[in-house]
Amino acid sequence: MSNIQITKEGNLQHLLTTESMNKELIIKIFDIAETFLKIGKHDVKKVPLLRGKTVCNLFFENSTRTRTTFEIAAKRLSADVLNLDISSSSQSKGESIIDTVNNLIAMSANIFVIRHPESGMPKYIANNVSKDVHIINAGDGNNSHPTQGLLDAFTIRKYKKDFNGLKIAIVGDIKHSRVARSEMHTLSILGVSEIRLVGPKIFMPDDIDQTKFQEFNDMKEGISDVDVVMMLRIQKERMQQEIIPSEKKYFESFGLTTKLLKYAKKDAIVMHPGPINRGVEIQTEVADSSQSVILAQVTFGIAIRMAVMTMLIDKNI
Amino acid sequence: MSNIQITKEGNLQHLLTTESMNKELIIKIFDIAETFLKIGKHDVKKVPLLRGKTVCNLFFENSTRTRTTFEIAAKRLSADVLNLDISSSSQSKGESIIDTVNNLIAMSANIFVIRHPESGMPKYIANNVSKDVHIINAGDGNNSHPTQGLLDAFTIRKYKKDFNGLKIAIVGDIKHSRVARSEMHTLSILGVSEIRLVGPKIFMPDDIDQTKFQEFNDMKEGISDVDVVMMLRIQKERMQQEIIPSEKKYFESFGLTTKLLKYAKKDAIVMHPGPINRGVEIQTEVADSSQSVILAQVTFGIAIRMAVMTMLIDKNI
Amino acid sequence: MSNIQITKEGNLQHLLTTESMNKELIIKIFDIAETFLKIGKHDVKKVPLLRGKTVCNLFFENSTRTRTTFEIAAKRLSADVLNLDISSSSQSKGESIIDTVNNLIAMSANIFVIRHPESGMPKYIANNVSKDVHIINAGDGNNSHPTQGLLDAFTIRKYKKDFNGLKIAIVGDIKHSRVARSEMHTLSILGVSEIRLVGPKIFMPDDIDQTKFQEFNDMKEGISDVDVVMMLRIQKERMQQEIIPSEKKYFESFGLTTKLLKYAKKDAIVMHPGPINRGVEIQTEVADSSQSVILAQVTFGIAIRMAVMTMLIDKNI
Repeated sequence: MSNIQITKEGNLQHLLTTESMNKELIIKIFDIAETFLKIGKHDVKKVPLLRGKTVCNLFFENSTRTRTTFEIAAKRLSADVLNLDISSSSQSKGESIIDTVNNLIAMSANIFVIRHPESGMPKYIANNVSKDVHIINAGDGNNSHPTQGLLDAFTIRKYKKDFNGLKIAIVGDIKHSRVARSEMHTLSILGVSEIRLVGPKIFMPDDIDQTKFQEFNDMKEGISDVDVVMMLRIQKERMQQEIIPSEKKYFESFGLTTKLLKYAKKDAIVMHPGPINRGVEIQTEVADSSQSVILAQVTFGIAIRMAVMTMLIDKNI
Repeated sequence: MSNIQITKEGNLQHLLTTESMNKELIIKIFDIAETFLKIGKHDVKKVPLLRGKTVCNLFFENSTRTRTTFEIAAKRLSADVLNLDISSSSQSKGESIIDTVNNLIAMSANIFVIRHPESGMPKYIANNVSKDVHIINAGDGNNSHPTQGLLDAFTIRKYKKDFNGLKIAIVGDIKHSRVARSEMHTLSILGVSEIRLVGPKIFMPDDIDQTKFQEFNDMKEGISDVDVVMMLRIQKERMQQEIIPSEKKYFESFGLTTKLLKYAKKDAIVMHPGPINRGVEIQTEVADSSQSVILAQVTFGIAIRMAVMTMLIDKNI
Repeated sequence: MSNIQITKEGNLQHLLTTESMNKELIIKIFDIAETFLKIGKHDVKKVPLLRGKTVCNLFFENSTRTRTTFEIAAKRLSADVLNLDISSSSQSKGESIIDTVNNLIAMSANIFVIRHPESGMPKYIANNVSKDVHIINAGDGNNSHPTQGLLDAFTIRKYKKDFNGLKIAIVGDIKHSRVARSEMHTLSILGVSEIRLVGPKIFMPDDIDQTKFQEFNDMKEGISDVDVVMMLRIQKERMQQEIIPSEKKYFESFGLTTKLLKYAKKDAIVMHPGPINRGVEIQTEVADSSQSVILAQVTFGIAIRMAVMTMLIDKNI
């Protein structure tokens, strides 16, 4: 993609994908997120960095969970927050998305957090509206979910310090997952030595860059000796469409159990973007074990989103 | 119930039910609510007691009215407020309630206001999440609605000063009412001399403690000489299920009319938790009369909810 | 109407209609809006004029767009905002509108922004609740939409300076449009020389005051030599009811095209209350042209709503 998300001066203008980011920028986001993590431990968690700014959550696909993380991050920065559930409003009146966004810009919205079922829509919007506003992609089709990719890599840094030398397995439906795609970009840019894609053949992307990623269709082999197991959420809808046989059968082959986890390194951490399907892609005992960092990911996600929003608005940070 | 809502030091950890509270604690809530009532008369009604805290309204049952009272109370304390309508979000994705709450805790929610159709759910949640958060029960099944019970008793104190010596009638479907249950506990703990339960036989609980409560199946007798008439809302759905004959017939026997109200003390006050069904359980003339304190209850309810939230967070108040 | 919206001292108590306003009051609203426009250019856009006040958006008809403008205006004044979608809450519980509003007043709501499908409902509410609160009509049936009328006239003042000597065409379904009605009042009170109503015969009101307004059933003649073209939104529902033949046919006769716009003055501006139907009442090229001030209207709308809310609360401004 043409790099519309970075200005000529090297600042973050939008966050659309992790694909074209460079290591320095990602490390900068992480370092700023660290400072927000510290504030998160204070009694009063608010900072006035976005006071008087308006963050507009524009969700064309319902996701209370993701929207809430952006809402909390924005409020903690003292921004005003607008939650617009678009499926039910202007779209039904036949107004185009660009008209909707331009109207909100005219009302002085500064940052748009956009989730849309179509891949590429946040980029399309960024290309067609005023240069003064900032777009954050909160998930588009099966294309990208950059804040998730960033927070996942940030979580790994918190527990494993150095990316160099790490073996990481991403397990599940890689092919249809925007989360997997954003994780793969980020970890690859950060120089992770070995990134494994683990899952049944039908869940593997067609065009794996084998210089960067290794495919495994067997769970035991796939997670053998890894430092990090990143589980993906199984979309139950896919099972109902009989793309995969059944929850039970999938769990038998690729569900992460205590027994299987023993094949990973002793101090391996287990990650999941949530919400988890207990007994489908992950055993309850594993999700709740001391190796699971799933809830830590959520906490770190707030700090990452605060960092991204701050960098969009404040070029001098 | 095991008293998980009070810490060893005697502080309020959760507000799940009025059942196990003691008189001192209730009086303390009332006294703090009084100070908030005074602030309510100021031009600027906000105080910074919960600044930087997040209050999460988790409603598994739709109630704009009740949710709004908690939202206003939290905002007046300068808290950030998240409104989550759960029926339509993560529940449909199959995430467990405990996972949902734990995720929100990881995002740093401090207080959860929970309404749920199942009795006992707020207590279940309080027992299964981190000890650092606070649960307020905003109504669970036909079990409990503690802030309503407290605000009703507070209203009585505002108008009648001393609980000792009072005669109070609770009128309506006692059996299925969480409001009635919370009122009965609170008034009994506060030492009200005579608490009457008034309504048709089918609306009486099976297990009335006759040392504390007296049953009346005749309206005239039930409200004779009382100081306070507490009406309950008739659930119209029950009528459609033909549990009670008809709105008209119910009104003839147990609707509170100007004529009937004459049997109560001359200065008796009339209460109702709202929303009222005019012409079903209460005559319009009574609802709008000078004896009605129904809207005062609403105002006092904000102060009570502010007091409870403050006590949950600030142990030194 | 009896002028309940102005106090004896000449202050704004409610904003229900533009019909009975006088020129001085409208000019005062505009002058205050100008100061808010300047604040809108500041880095921090918030002012504390409504701190501690509660603005309640009571929408009995869904309109995310309009509600958002009031929400932004209120938040920029530092008010607390409650969004209540009433169709789905207390109305279904059978509570009367007046009871709903009185309950919210008891919770200390100060300003109600009301949209309702029935003409006259905001006035009815203003007449039946406490004198301490303020009602803003955000659109009632096909009666009135006063903030839209005011912001439209304010937009004209920004571009054309003096109302005297202007020729203005309002184009579309005048008969069923609350927007048209509010524009007609406002422009007439402000002394616009020539106000033309342009559209097919079936879209003309029955009772046009010909001393103030001129009817045109031909688009070319109607916009000939005008300074301002104010387009109305075509309600597609009306077409489905076959009141007008088809979108295509309507566009051929009354759609504003680049070609037609040449009949207006060279520096004529084009306005539209939004959301626009591209290719139905307005050609895309016109909507996006340099003569279009449609997005400026949106920006000015925030300032007008801030001015109105401030004048309702602060009598000394």
